[in-house]
Amino acid sequence: MTTHFFEHPLNEKTRIYLRVEALLNQLSVSSQFSDDMQHLLFFRSLFDLLEIFEQIQLKSELAKDIEKQRLTYRSWLDVEGVDQDMLSNILAEVDNVHSKLMAAERFGQSLKEDRFLSAIRQRFNLPGGSCCFDLPALHHWLHLSVEQKTRDTNLWLDTLQPLTDALKLWLRLTRETGHFQPQEAAAGFYQSDAEDANILRLEIPMQYGVFPMISGHKNRFAIKFINFASGQASVDNIQFRLAVCS
Amino acid sequence: MTTHFFEHPLNEKTRIYLRVEALLNQLSVSSQFSDDMQHLLFFRSLFDLLEIFEQIQLKSELAKDIEKQRLTYRSWLDVEGVDQDMLSNILAEVDNVHSKLMAAERFGQSLKEDRFLSAIRQRFNLPGGSCCFDLPALHHWLHLSVEQKTRDTNLWLDTLQPLTDALKLWLRLTRETGHFQPQEAAAGFYQSDAEDANILRLEIPMQYGVFPMISGHKNRFAIKFINFASGQASVDNIQFRLAVCS
Repeated sequence: MTTHFFEHPLNEKTRIYLRVEALLNQLSVSSQFSDDMQHLLFFRSLFDLLEIFEQIQLKSELAKDIEKQRLTYRSWLDVEGVDQDMLSNILAEVDNVHSKLMAAERFGQSLKEDRFLSAIRQRFNLPGGSCCFDLPALHHWLHLSVEQKTRDTNLWLDTLQPLTDALKLWLRLTRETGHFQPQEAAAGFYQSDAEDANILRLEIPMQYGVFPMISGHKNRFAIKFINFASGQASVDNIQFRLAVCS
Repeated sequence: MTTHFFEHPLNEKTRIYLRVEALLNQLSVSSQFSDDMQHLLFFRSLFDLLEIFEQIQLKSELAKDIEKQRLTYRSWLDVEGVDQDMLSNILAEVDNVHSKLMAAERFGQSLKEDRFLSAIRQRFNLPGGSCCFDLPALHHWLHLSVEQKTRDTNLWLDTLQPLTDALKLWLRLTRETGHFQPQEAAAGFYQSDAEDANILRLEIPMQYGVFPMISGHKNRFAIKFINFASGQASVDNIQFRLAVCS
């Protein structure tokens, strides 16, 4: 049975984190330039990231959140029943990622100072603006050898590594706090309390033909299932699985 | 020897035509959904096209230009030395494309009225805005069977067929008017007169490490070659090939 896996952030900061995770993933996949079009996705993702970096102080937010996770894990030191080996491994990983994050430049700083990237960034958002006459420098770059393009690409991606590592760790530890449980949305509707939650994760069987519309915040949320074909709220009783992650 | 092929439009309308051609090409390639990311390119290209359709009366512009080509080819009827068979084939093709273009809806009309497309269009331009929580309907659609997605995609693309056929024909006939000739840019600079030209086509050997910056209009144009590595104007004598198409 096919399942629609779905994640929903319960606060604005986590919303940004999940968008940044998606963009970093797009960057990584498209950096292979395995077809003629992937450079479009690569540069679009890179410039979307720069735009997000300009909007929020991502580095300090993430440092604060990782620090918070560190304090939580530290509070379990020497607590009976807690696997101390696993705990000290996690704490070492958190320490390592946190110190690299603190040592990193302001996210996107060197990308913004890159002459080539700055030159193409402006035009890239025009509708259809990635033609050779709009971006002659980009089209020259695309004709360079694979080795040269890979060298440039790795240089750009390397500047994002402290962000990638920190975000991956925070999201992994956050996701691990939740456990999938079967739930039912009676007449297409489900609501529940939560405790300082960040992310909802849902597994929805495709057979219902519905997708979720979710509202709420860290302490309370509601899920309304919408029928894809009609665009209307579903009135079916829907069995799905839910994990609440904090 | 690797060559950088380059096209430059000499007026605003042709600029739009070439961007639309690039977008239609992106649509066609990405409509195979051959990897997890191609839907991003597909919908981006589709929405970029809709934005262009809202900015200019593409259909009537294109109809006028095809009509102009028809008159030019008609004036060669019964002219000695002109291959009359080939000419009547072209004229039949022009007639066919022109009448289908005139019979077509306003470009993008049914795409704009599509409930699913309208629902996802707004959010799509947010940086990183194609996450499942931003676009739940899109993520449901992505989980549908390949047959169903192909059916939807073909339905959308079919509405663009009269545009695709007309634009391809106009660009093909326009490009065919030009013939590549060897040229030299002394100290990185070349200028020339033209006669009612629409597109310049260049073949630039990669060995020079330069890309062209072109300015001008239908009757006169200048090409300045820029050194990619330094970002400065090149002072080399550059051998390249040029076709002027009207």
